[in-house]
Amino acid sequence: MSNRPIGVFDSGLGGLTVLKEIKKILPNEDIVYFGDTARVPYGPRSKEAVKKYTFQAINFLMEKDVKAIVIACNTATARALSEAKEQYDIPIIGVIEAGARTAAYTTKNNIVGVIGTDGTIRSKAYEREIAKINKDIKIVDKACPLFVPIAEEGWANNEVAKLTAKIYLEELINKDIDCLVLGCTHYPILMRTIGETVGEKIILVNPAKETAKDLKKTMQEKNILNNTQRTQAKYEYYVSDIPDKFYVIAKEFIDQDIENVEKIEIQKY
Amino acid sequence: MSNRPIGVFDSGLGGLTVLKEIKKILPNEDIVYFGDTARVPYGPRSKEAVKKYTFQAINFLMEKDVKAIVIACNTATARALSEAKEQYDIPIIGVIEAGARTAAYTTKNNIVGVIGTDGTIRSKAYEREIAKINKDIKIVDKACPLFVPIAEEGWANNEVAKLTAKIYLEELINKDIDCLVLGCTHYPILMRTIGETVGEKIILVNPAKETAKDLKKTMQEKNILNNTQRTQAKYEYYVSDIPDKFYVIAKEFIDQDIENVEKIEIQKY
Repeated sequence: MSNRPIGVFDSGLGGLTVLKEIKKILPNEDIVYFGDTARVPYGPRSKEAVKKYTFQAINFLMEKDVKAIVIACNTATARALSEAKEQYDIPIIGVIEAGARTAAYTTKNNIVGVIGTDGTIRSKAYEREIAKINKDIKIVDKACPLFVPIAEEGWANNEVAKLTAKIYLEELINKDIDCLVLGCTHYPILMRTIGETVGEKIILVNPAKETAKDLKKTMQEKNILNNTQRTQAKYEYYVSDIPDKFYVIAKEFIDQDIENVEKIEIQKY
Repeated sequence: MSNRPIGVFDSGLGGLTVLKEIKKILPNEDIVYFGDTARVPYGPRSKEAVKKYTFQAINFLMEKDVKAIVIACNTATARALSEAKEQYDIPIIGVIEAGARTAAYTTKNNIVGVIGTDGTIRSKAYEREIAKINKDIKIVDKACPLFVPIAEEGWANNEVAKLTAKIYLEELINKDIDCLVLGCTHYPILMRTIGETVGEKIILVNPAKETAKDLKKTMQEKNILNNTQRTQAKYEYYVSDIPDKFYVIAKEFIDQDIENVEKIEIQKY
């Protein structure tokens, strides 16, 4: 069991920000990554569509014989995690629980900001998770659909990004949030712009780091960490489409070249 | 034959700008619209993916017994029109030929600007079509991937749209274009912002209007215009997903409420 790889899944390439954190604290683990680049973005799609796509991704990763799965996409976590946990035997970890917990323990004034895609915000998943920990915390949330295409355009720090951040975030700042959850795996790319817009007093929560820690803890508890002696773990990347700009965008997310990328027909799963 | 509907297809809702023009000049014709909202946008996807999706859409429309098809999407036209024309017996019309022809006859200095999605620009489809008419015309093109999400956010005329237009279009203006093709069916939504950015001297070409005229001409030639006496033509809308913001966005595009929308499973076709 413990020699099997970890599966990481995202609607596209945003999940690579989570993969990066997992590699840092679990360098001995093999990882199979699947990005559903033929159907990205999940953010604006219906709940039913996101659920179907997520189950197809999990089925694909199960065929790769993974020992645990990280749903490294907030929209997919919000729409499909609880059902997925019921249907599969291996541990399945989303990105929302860890982010919600961190926010709940970070806020001092009990006003937490959450930003994400349309799907994530409409699902109210962060609100539910935070309420489980502390019912007194008030959530101020906002969908920021333009952040994803801005990140993918490589414009994370230009004037368009700054102006967009100002428009989206102004109402959150005015409602006195003291911490802000980056509830989409693309958003850490825009961390500097978002940070400068909200100012130093508002603490940014990046669920990717916390999710990686949750994964490690779960695997320790289940006794499925890979203890084999090895010099280099294996990373396999699968996508449902390889668009023209694929390698440029992938490099921007993971800060290194991606090799061994294979295209699969995800609708078969 | 002539009583059968016309099929109009787009990757999402942008094609509604073309449907609007068709309704204006062919008010007696029934129309079946299909928007592939489960897999929109086609712009950044690979040629193979766009081709496959386009053929599935055509197969679906053929089942609805259409007498002609308009591929109301520049990316799908660029990637799949020529093969589609070979494989089907009914007239299939794209949006690029009409736009290219109008640009070729509009330019005075033989320098034409073309903007569109990544897929459309990389395909060089406008360049090829314009060269068929006049080889001396120089093309200056530019992918503008942020225009689609800006239009769908309802931000067509705000400061973000203006700043984005300035960044994208500056190099085209500096290269002395005297007309600019709006090579994506979403872009007419941004017409005012684009027009103000490039200035009055640069003429904007909207392929939607010209495509509707081409369709009418083709149908006249084939003698398949609907000559039945009737008070109201029928419009049916099919999509592959109905996201939460569907009706808001649809209304913005067609300037009236959309009814009779049915969700279909497009991957079956």
